[in-house]
Amino acid sequence: MNQFISGEVIEVQSLEEIADMDSIAVAGKIIFYNRPMDPKHFSTFRAYGGCVDQRYSGAIEAAKKGAIAVLVRSMGLRQDDFPHTGTMAYEEGITKIPALAVSTNGANYLSENLKKTPKLDLAIKTSCETLPDKVSYNVIGEIRGSKYPDIFITVGGHLDSWDLGEGAHDDGAGTVQSIEVLHLLKTLNIKPQYTIRCVLFMNEENGNRGGISYAERAIQEKEKHLAAFESDRGGFSPRGFSVNGSAKRLKSIQAWASLLKPYGLHEFEAGFAGVDINPLKNDTICLIGLSPDSQRYFDHHHTDDDVFEAVNKRELELGAASMTALIYLIDKYWKYPN
Amino acid sequence: MNQFISGEVIEVQSLEEIADMDSIAVAGKIIFYNRPMDPKHFSTFRAYGGCVDQRYSGAIEAAKKGAIAVLVRSMGLRQDDFPHTGTMAYEEGITKIPALAVSTNGANYLSENLKKTPKLDLAIKTSCETLPDKVSYNVIGEIRGSKYPDIFITVGGHLDSWDLGEGAHDDGAGTVQSIEVLHLLKTLNIKPQYTIRCVLFMNEENGNRGGISYAERAIQEKEKHLAAFESDRGGFSPRGFSVNGSAKRLKSIQAWASLLKPYGLHEFEAGFAGVDINPLKNDTICLIGLSPDSQRYFDHHHTDDDVFEAVNKRELELGAASMTALIYLIDKYWKYPN
Repeated sequence: MNQFISGEVIEVQSLEEIADMDSIAVAGKIIFYNRPMDPKHFSTFRAYGGCVDQRYSGAIEAAKKGAIAVLVRSMGLRQDDFPHTGTMAYEEGITKIPALAVSTNGANYLSENLKKTPKLDLAIKTSCETLPDKVSYNVIGEIRGSKYPDIFITVGGHLDSWDLGEGAHDDGAGTVQSIEVLHLLKTLNIKPQYTIRCVLFMNEENGNRGGISYAERAIQEKEKHLAAFESDRGGFSPRGFSVNGSAKRLKSIQAWASLLKPYGLHEFEAGFAGVDINPLKNDTICLIGLSPDSQRYFDHHHTDDDVFEAVNKRELELGAASMTALIYLIDKYWKYPN
Repeated sequence: MNQFISGEVIEVQSLEEIADMDSIAVAGKIIFYNRPMDPKHFSTFRAYGGCVDQRYSGAIEAAKKGAIAVLVRSMGLRQDDFPHTGTMAYEEGITKIPALAVSTNGANYLSENLKKTPKLDLAIKTSCETLPDKVSYNVIGEIRGSKYPDIFITVGGHLDSWDLGEGAHDDGAGTVQSIEVLHLLKTLNIKPQYTIRCVLFMNEENGNRGGISYAERAIQEKEKHLAAFESDRGGFSPRGFSVNGSAKRLKSIQAWASLLKPYGLHEFEAGFAGVDINPLKNDTICLIGLSPDSQRYFDHHHTDDDVFEAVNKRELELGAASMTALIYLIDKYWKYPN
């Protein structure tokens, strides 16, 4: 479905800037959101969070003022030619205008030219379309618990990926690591007390229906879930875990720090654990996200450069080993429900 | 200077294995050292240390038994086609036989074929030569101390590189980071008390004459050195520092851990700091090595794959910022001599 648009470009740095502008100035124009990720945040996820509103709500805010399209600077610290895409929203009653990503190099080029030539026309061709839904499934494998087969520790990543690239880091890495947890336990001939369930979730990127249905099913079946792990931050050198559970559980993990530190794991903090496992959240379960080094993640995430070659096998293996080590400890020492 | 050699190959796993063999079995043969790096070491430097004796002393031990050449499996965890080379030794009175590196893929291929066909001939062509020495220099720049201009904090990497590749990680990264320390201090308008001296050392790979002459000069000139930093472990995400100084200095750095942890720095241990700065060692100086994540280092070190494209700018910058932060603290709080 090809669509052609052309019009004058106005560069802005924020949604607020658009909200403050007169409709007369914006009507018929293409809005170019160009606020870059702030490199002063050590965590690139924090830097990402600091500018993703432009992509998520940019089309809505611009359309409210009569803009005909938006261009959004890629969320990434690297200067490259890979447009970085992701979830964006429309609002009921507001015109659904096209929204496009432009690479960091492209955004810099456009911005420089706008400084030289303030009235610049841009021609856009798009061919996006949303295809109808297809039935798809979570993929599940498990090692049955030797003592408590009806109590579960889940470990997973998501099987779907964003449109661009191969989804190698997001989340090929997490799915392979989750399978590897079962493989490592078997190789080491460890017989867990609880059932260790590897879940490759479907549809994380586009509604989280795999995660939601897995949690709904758990309630229907009255399943008891002790803990759930997720790896969905890339296959980089592991740094620790982000823990969403009771203070007691967090303290228990922090008490194992000396066992995990020799393997480079040093971050054991309360925080969000993962989109796929988040619907499992209740008063008893402890949700745990693997935290790899974040520095290279947004060089690849949701771009054509999220490819197999960009994943380092050794770093990937260490992430799988880290999850396995913590699952081993939890299986050995934690009681259900708390 | 082309040299052609051919002969039957014998695979061994260690120097000890050769030492135990009869000269009759070895004479006229090519010895293939094939003990791989042990992936169970978390630190790849430790894994490297566990098999580098094959490369360093392999030719000597094989020649003692009459071998005509040695092939050495590359020190690297990655399966690839890049031979990994480095320092090797000959011994007075022992025949200097050719020693060659073979990539991990090549070593696996050869080993598999030797299992199928135990008597396998190998033809080798070499064209190595050692060129005569050339006069070269350390390159030095400094910010003069505002209060103690005659007391120095050195920060450096080495300007030379091994024959293969571009030397991007080893040690282009360290030299650029050392220059960046001065640049950051200037940009932040920090006026250090002590003189901060950036030294790009010459000849680390091949005798350390730059490091040795810098230390000799320091003694001749009666220079007072408070601390010296080195970055020579690649331009990867920084993890901390390896400290070779008094217990008091190490404790002082560890006491700053809470200031450095938000930037992912968590390793502050006693250890070797760097080849170039090591000759400066005396009772007062504190030698400090930047410790980046080591997982990818031996994918690149001393191979044709040590190239610019393999250095991540963001990771490189964080290493420079980490050294700058610690130099800032030392400049502010440490007294000379201790």
